[in-house]
Amino acid sequence: ELFVLTYGALVAQLCKDYEKDEDVNTCLDRMGYGIGVRLIDDFLARSAVKKCRSYSETADVIAQVAFKMYLGVTPSVSCSSAAGNEFSLILDKNPLVDFVEELPAERASLCYCNLLCGVIRGALEMVQLAAEVTFLQDRLKGDAVTEIGITFLRKAED
Amino acid sequence: ELFVLTYGALVAQLCKDYEKDEDVNTCLDRMGYGIGVRLIDDFLARSAVKKCRSYSETADVIAQVAFKMYLGVTPSVSCSSAAGNEFSLILDKNPLVDFVEELPAERASLCYCNLLCGVIRGALEMVQLAAEVTFLQDRLKGDAVTEIGITFLRKAED
Repeated sequence: ELFVLTYGALVAQLCKDYEKDEDVNTCLDRMGYGIGVRLIDDFLARSAVKKCRSYSETADVIAQVAFKMYLGVTPSVSCSSAAGNEFSLILDKNPLVDFVEELPAERASLCYCNLLCGVIRGALEMVQLAAEVTFLQDRLKGDAVTEIGITFLRKAED
Repeated sequence: ELFVLTYGALVAQLCKDYEKDEDVNTCLDRMGYGIGVRLIDDFLARSAVKKCRSYSETADVIAQVAFKMYLGVTPSVSCSSAAGNEFSLILDKNPLVDFVEELPAERASLCYCNLLCGVIRGALEMVQLAAEVTFLQDRLKGDAVTEIGITFLRKAED
């Protein structure tokens, strides 16, 4: 709907502005970061979630509360490291790409939804959780699912 | 929330790209037009509204159904011409500017929400209604309300 199409217009504009996919990806991530930093207040106020006691709980809240609230979908979560600091959010359906058929051949390295990674990273940073957030799989690139990887950068909390 | 902040990122990017406010306004309107042209199908499918029989009914549907569906607000509508082809949508609250304090001095002519005008224009065109859509008042510019003017360009329908 309106948000999805507006997001598409933003990505299209950045593709006009930057020739290299990497630069578009970086720009989307940076914009997302700025959004996440501001969105966290809205999220905490509206969700009334309490402080998470583990990375696992944090990942669950992102998937089940935040994604549900802002995108209307609930990714499944899996932990992908023995250390317990790496998680995958797996989306069968990504509403942000509803109107995108496929990436044009000359934009094969574009992470279309990279804004989301930045949003998650920015929001986590505001609750003192440093993390790396990247797309690991993307249906737009022919993968079976869309997978966002979150790696928390400090040791598991006490 | 996420849409509002993403829209803000889009406007900020265009302000980087174009020095003149007029060019940003034109670009937002053009983008909105492309969005409206695609959004109309989603709107007709989800709203199940029937064909409007007058401009007045059309303006009411835009305000009460479309604005409600996509922005969560319902502008009031007034007819502003004896010919019955000019309408004003008046917004006491504009959710798109929730995170905008005020326009910076060097962007005094920016129509921050101009995308909306393009969306309405594009959507109307797809149902064979040519219209001009512009901001007549804007709270971001110090006006008491935000007012969007819609002028239907053909004579009243039969």
